[in-house]
Amino acid sequence: MSSNAYQVLEQRFARMGALNEAAGMLHWDMAAVMPEGGHGARAEQLAILNVIAHEMLTAPETADLLENAQGAGLDSWQAANLNEMRRLYVHATALSPAFVEAMTRARAACEKVWRTARPAGDFKAVQGKLQAVLDLAREAAAAKAEKLGLSPYEALMDEYEPGARVAEITPIFDAYAAFLPEFLGRVLEHQKAKGAPVLPQGPFPIATQKALGEKLMGIIGFDFNHGRLDTSAHPFCGGTPDDVRITTRYDESSFADALMGVIHETGHALYERGLPADWRRQPVGQARGMALHESQSLLIEMQAARSVDFCRFLSPLLQETYPGNAAAFHPENLFRLYTQVNPGFIRVNADEVTYPAHVILRYRLEQALISGDLSLDDLPGAWNDGMKQLLGLTVANDREGCLQDIHWFEGLFGYFPCYSLGAMNAAQLFAAAIAAEPGIPAAIGRGDFKPLLAWLRQNVHGLGSSLTTAEIVTRATGRPLDADLFRRHLTQRYLGTA
Amino acid sequence: MSSNAYQVLEQRFARMGALNEAAGMLHWDMAAVMPEGGHGARAEQLAILNVIAHEMLTAPETADLLENAQGAGLDSWQAANLNEMRRLYVHATALSPAFVEAMTRARAACEKVWRTARPAGDFKAVQGKLQAVLDLAREAAAAKAEKLGLSPYEALMDEYEPGARVAEITPIFDAYAAFLPEFLGRVLEHQKAKGAPVLPQGPFPIATQKALGEKLMGIIGFDFNHGRLDTSAHPFCGGTPDDVRITTRYDESSFADALMGVIHETGHALYERGLPADWRRQPVGQARGMALHESQSLLIEMQAARSVDFCRFLSPLLQETYPGNAAAFHPENLFRLYTQVNPGFIRVNADEVTYPAHVILRYRLEQALISGDLSLDDLPGAWNDGMKQLLGLTVANDREGCLQDIHWFEGLFGYFPCYSLGAMNAAQLFAAAIAAEPGIPAAIGRGDFKPLLAWLRQNVHGLGSSLTTAEIVTRATGRPLDADLFRRHLTQRYLGTA
Repeated sequence: MSSNAYQVLEQRFARMGALNEAAGMLHWDMAAVMPEGGHGARAEQLAILNVIAHEMLTAPETADLLENAQGAGLDSWQAANLNEMRRLYVHATALSPAFVEAMTRARAACEKVWRTARPAGDFKAVQGKLQAVLDLAREAAAAKAEKLGLSPYEALMDEYEPGARVAEITPIFDAYAAFLPEFLGRVLEHQKAKGAPVLPQGPFPIATQKALGEKLMGIIGFDFNHGRLDTSAHPFCGGTPDDVRITTRYDESSFADALMGVIHETGHALYERGLPADWRRQPVGQARGMALHESQSLLIEMQAARSVDFCRFLSPLLQETYPGNAAAFHPENLFRLYTQVNPGFIRVNADEVTYPAHVILRYRLEQALISGDLSLDDLPGAWNDGMKQLLGLTVANDREGCLQDIHWFEGLFGYFPCYSLGAMNAAQLFAAAIAAEPGIPAAIGRGDFKPLLAWLRQNVHGLGSSLTTAEIVTRATGRPLDADLFRRHLTQRYLGTA
Repeated sequence: MSSNAYQVLEQRFARMGALNEAAGMLHWDMAAVMPEGGHGARAEQLAILNVIAHEMLTAPETADLLENAQGAGLDSWQAANLNEMRRLYVHATALSPAFVEAMTRARAACEKVWRTARPAGDFKAVQGKLQAVLDLAREAAAAKAEKLGLSPYEALMDEYEPGARVAEITPIFDAYAAFLPEFLGRVLEHQKAKGAPVLPQGPFPIATQKALGEKLMGIIGFDFNHGRLDTSAHPFCGGTPDDVRITTRYDESSFADALMGVIHETGHALYERGLPADWRRQPVGQARGMALHESQSLLIEMQAARSVDFCRFLSPLLQETYPGNAAAFHPENLFRLYTQVNPGFIRVNADEVTYPAHVILRYRLEQALISGDLSLDDLPGAWNDGMKQLLGLTVANDREGCLQDIHWFEGLFGYFPCYSLGAMNAAQLFAAAIAAEPGIPAAIGRGDFKPLLAWLRQNVHGLGSSLTTAEIVTRATGRPLDADLFRRHLTQRYLGTA
């Protein structure tokens, strides 16, 4: 009876999974190939697919089945699948349909105003709409917190990275904030002593960039029989595990941005492609969370592809692709180009060393916004104080301050920590991979990613959501997230000492 | 109460409509851009979207609502919408889910064997599988016939072209079969007297063909803000009315095939794009049927774009695009190239004059198969006799005979007549358009399709499924389908006399 209930649940969630996969493809299409005039119909299609899946998830039958499936003789994957089903059910039913609709409307209205307020640097213009979004986010956080037994902020994080806890993240981020000022000073001094790297001369034609990107994707392990590379305004990894669609954007004056962008998205793509094939379209077969997802893109981009080893491999390829830039594409110069540190105001342009400061700032502020300790009146000032404290920079315009990211304005609170948790997990996982397979760096230096990918398949990708991120990291590396490994990686890379 | 039931039905069918639109986009993606390895997941997504829509349509609530919506104070479009809902409900509920599943399996199994039997010319190899498909098709026809009050064969046609009746089609087709032999003889003689047209010299680069195709699409009225042109193995028109995706395939040795293919699909696209915007995703907002759909593609391709007027416009464009072929692209020579008549075995390669003979043959044979008057043992012989009688050709191999089309082998009985009904409706509609707007041919000669398109929007496209095909044609042309207009068109075009 209860095992039968579980089987019915699997069928039900397979349907939701197929609807989600269909929506994923429609999202890719919208970003990569859809003509402008298709937006209205596409929004309608996506909204309806979403409503149908939501109704399946929140239907009384689902609740009955989840109750009846308790205590059954399930194996560990089935049990984990059932847990994920429950988590999704709780998230979906914590808020009433009317509330979700109000939230969707408030977010759309706010995002729309933000699109003009940001370039104008006019926080006041959007503050009212943001207040409405924040009020609803706080209400949602409280409702979910009660159902999940978490703090309100944790309940929000749980949507993006299940199991993320303030008690674990705060000390890690505080330690990094304490480490950064002196370290950053030493890195900048060290960099200055070396002088500026040689810049390669463009233009770098788009077709050439694309061909090189596809070549490197293949080298890293992207399977073009199960995926594509296309162009979109905002690069992303979408599609489904059996048909992974990554996108990038090109700038003819820069050889580097699209290249590292493609490599980053390839890291995401490898994770999706490596998810357990036996659990397609089931909750347990999905990627674990956004922090772990980001760890996979950053492991490939930051740990592997910005390494000295990979620069050695990439150098002759670049020289062949863009002749006449021998000095710029010399392995050592290339490594310096790819590891320049420049404290700045904008998160998305930040380097590996200063990026966490941007995230820590947002993490602290959004907790205060959700708890009510910080009002929106005080947000720009608090932002600017934080930037001064963390990176020593004076924000002159909210355009380069609290208006820069879309996240809050479209209601995403609790997402930001994923970026830096990803970077830290990436350092720890990469170190563990090398400890297990010491040949990995040399292989990367030959353009051979197979040993690394094999380790990732076994220790991360293939586990889907059968374990929590903490369990996956502990199992793979022998200990919970330890930010010291990230600092050690930075010290070695940017100061040449361990 | 009953008007309320109607409103609920509209919401219900809007959901099914969105699922169908999503499936349409996924089909386009599969044909145009999907990597090979995506097939398994895509089949699963499409099957599940289909099951969800089917369950919505056949649910007991739908039956209750359809009953309660009777006799309400609906306007004529709402009433027509309700009629279409009923028709879809009857088709969907006439067969049990178990029967539909058995049919799906039998079709897939048969089609698979056909893919090797056809090139081998081995009808016996596939006869058993085809028998299974035919038996199920006959059972389905009988079940639907009872529910719809039609003959079994008409019940099958009704799926593709609602309202198609044997009593109307048979005399039209018989008259054409009687007209053809002598007419064809005169055309071939007339053609011979003129000598062979000059052939242009290739190659014709694919990028150039594509650019020219897009240019002509724009000239004919395709809105690239609401659609795209892509490449696929089998050209089609897909997507949705707000985002019409057409495809073609290119052959560098032929300038003509892709060009006319693109123009043909553009005709389909204009129909989809012109469907009534107020009724998107409702049954009454959909294209009327496959015969009318084909009339729109053939009106643009055969009536408008293979005309002397259009050849006059196209000639300088082709000369500019592919220099060095002045004689071949002279307007008169171009017209002759585009109106060559060559009786042959293969339907998809047939010219405008002999195409109906291929359709009439299949129409006669499939009626006999469904009624039981013809057994599969006798099919190849009956086919070959028919070809001899209709076109005077002796079939030497079933590969060029009854094995050539996929339709029957994947269970499509009752579809073939749509092609020639489309050609005949196209001639009649085009004549009516010119009668109403005598400037249309001269405008086409200047590359101006606006007057023609305006007439089609008003008299065909914008009507959606609010009327039957017969009603649409009668309203637009003043009389029911009259095949004499098609014969008059052929006589004028191929003998230069009316």
